[in-house]
Amino acid sequence: MRIAVDAMGGDHAPDEIIRGALEANELLGAGDELILIGDRDCIERQLASSGVANNSIRMVHAPEIIGMDEAPVEALRKKRKSSIAVMARMASHNQTDAVISAGNTGACVAGCQIRMRNLPGVIRPGIAVVLPTLGGPVTMADVGANVACKPINLYQYAVMATVYSRQMFGIEKPRVGLMSIGEEDAKGNELVKKTREFLKSDTRLNFIGNLEGHDIFDGLCDVALCEGFVGNVILKLTEGLVAMLFKAIGYELKEESPRLANEFKPLIAQIYKKYDYHEYGGALLLGVNGTAVICHGSSKSRTIKNAILASKKFYTNRINDQIIRYLSNTSVRPNSE
Amino acid sequence: MRIAVDAMGGDHAPDEIIRGALEANELLGAGDELILIGDRDCIERQLASSGVANNSIRMVHAPEIIGMDEAPVEALRKKRKSSIAVMARMASHNQTDAVISAGNTGACVAGCQIRMRNLPGVIRPGIAVVLPTLGGPVTMADVGANVACKPINLYQYAVMATVYSRQMFGIEKPRVGLMSIGEEDAKGNELVKKTREFLKSDTRLNFIGNLEGHDIFDGLCDVALCEGFVGNVILKLTEGLVAMLFKAIGYELKEESPRLANEFKPLIAQIYKKYDYHEYGGALLLGVNGTAVICHGSSKSRTIKNAILASKKFYTNRINDQIIRYLSNTSVRPNSE
Repeated sequence: MRIAVDAMGGDHAPDEIIRGALEANELLGAGDELILIGDRDCIERQLASSGVANNSIRMVHAPEIIGMDEAPVEALRKKRKSSIAVMARMASHNQTDAVISAGNTGACVAGCQIRMRNLPGVIRPGIAVVLPTLGGPVTMADVGANVACKPINLYQYAVMATVYSRQMFGIEKPRVGLMSIGEEDAKGNELVKKTREFLKSDTRLNFIGNLEGHDIFDGLCDVALCEGFVGNVILKLTEGLVAMLFKAIGYELKEESPRLANEFKPLIAQIYKKYDYHEYGGALLLGVNGTAVICHGSSKSRTIKNAILASKKFYTNRINDQIIRYLSNTSVRPNSE
Repeated sequence: MRIAVDAMGGDHAPDEIIRGALEANELLGAGDELILIGDRDCIERQLASSGVANNSIRMVHAPEIIGMDEAPVEALRKKRKSSIAVMARMASHNQTDAVISAGNTGACVAGCQIRMRNLPGVIRPGIAVVLPTLGGPVTMADVGANVACKPINLYQYAVMATVYSRQMFGIEKPRVGLMSIGEEDAKGNELVKKTREFLKSDTRLNFIGNLEGHDIFDGLCDVALCEGFVGNVILKLTEGLVAMLFKAIGYELKEESPRLANEFKPLIAQIYKKYDYHEYGGALLLGVNGTAVICHGSSKSRTIKNAILASKKFYTNRINDQIIRYLSNTSVRPNSE
């Protein structure tokens, strides 16, 4: 399997990205090939400083970089030699089996969507993230690819996330919940009400009904569905709240008992790591014709390593083939609306 | 000022509700009158067990109770003698200056909306909650009254929450942020884009632009705007995530070091209390012609006490008068859309 990594994307590129790629490389099989995309000089310097021979890793030169704050579509159009643009083109020309980037999220999503096209039967791709909870990993989609979601889109995210959850985590019948503002059937907005009809009509899905915000972390579901706007707010809120709480705990501990604060520090780090969604190595762009993993801009080597390994599992388990097969056999169609 | 409390609403009614009311009563002024609404026998028993003379607190008998899980509008129609129905009627007949309930949220909101009517100029009321953050209290609206928000509704929530934040917390020019999925102007859905135009056009508002999920806790804003669906998800997610994290910390500590876990316990309780939004005593129903505070079903005496004191501050500071005056002087009107 050929896995291409955008060496220039993210707040800690290229050092941490390349370090993560090298860590993953140790764990990949003999038939796997890692490809680093980015400025050749820059990558070579980094490889040298890591004590790795140039010729042991394939490189694809991309002299331009799309900045984290650039307007995605415009940047893609202007910077055709950027690592993200080159990466998306490689995927579309079947020069790689998976792509991974921690760069400008909008540009990654747009680049992959435009270049890779959709899987047969998929109307719009969605982004799935995995949230670690006390009850196990919860796959949430969409978290920002689609801010004008239709019921048929949400239904297809349910199908894709179900296949994903089963294949990636071995959950045989993933429990699918629909984010709403009350458990009762009558609660929610129009999108939720119509989506629920689709989900109920497909008995192959293990649809458990509406979820409320707190249910995500209560171990009630394996898949949480929401439109991109809501999912993106949830994802970033979770990030900010966890960071604030740990900061608050550290602050209060220091005030109360510097000794306790010191003892608590390594434990905090350990807990943070365990409930940190970087553990799962980024977000999957579900529904494109290929394997694309989009990592958080703040990704360090661990996330990149995990993303590479996740992309291999996704590809090897033929998740896309199963999605295509599922959607070709469902009675819920775009014109069902 | 007359303050009516639904003694029968909430998971811990009537004990904790009445206890909280009595605690607040100690802090109210000579001109204030507390009114307990609910089953007379039940309230009298509770007062007796608290060592309070019956005749020192006014009671209004309401023999029926709306359960926490009943369908709100239907329950209101059927149970006209329920504490919530009686409470809303009292407000509409000017028999009380404020109402407070921890009962069925939907029924409280519906009852108050129907009976109390809207303030002049307000198109739809919204629910505002206050989230404690490291940067101070953040007022968020709407959190569930309006799941089909229009830009004019969000604009009016900005106005009402601004007045609220200024009067309740002394923040002179509250920074108003609009929940979206990226900082750039072009980001977000149609509702966000149109609302932004309204917010920008009103120079009396201190509009700071788009917020992302994590910004709520970063001390960037004093007011966070969102439609009811998103706000409700945020609120309940925050609740669930905080609970999960503290549970996870407790669990990991116990595994690692039972001694440390024991030492940490009282600190956890202290931190939890500080960042617990019960501190602010419930949610304000902004835009109704009166003062209505809706408390969480899990409210204990502290929340009820705080809610009563908050209702007094809201009423005394004439927040509703200021909202009316503001809206009568704005150029952003329903037909501006």
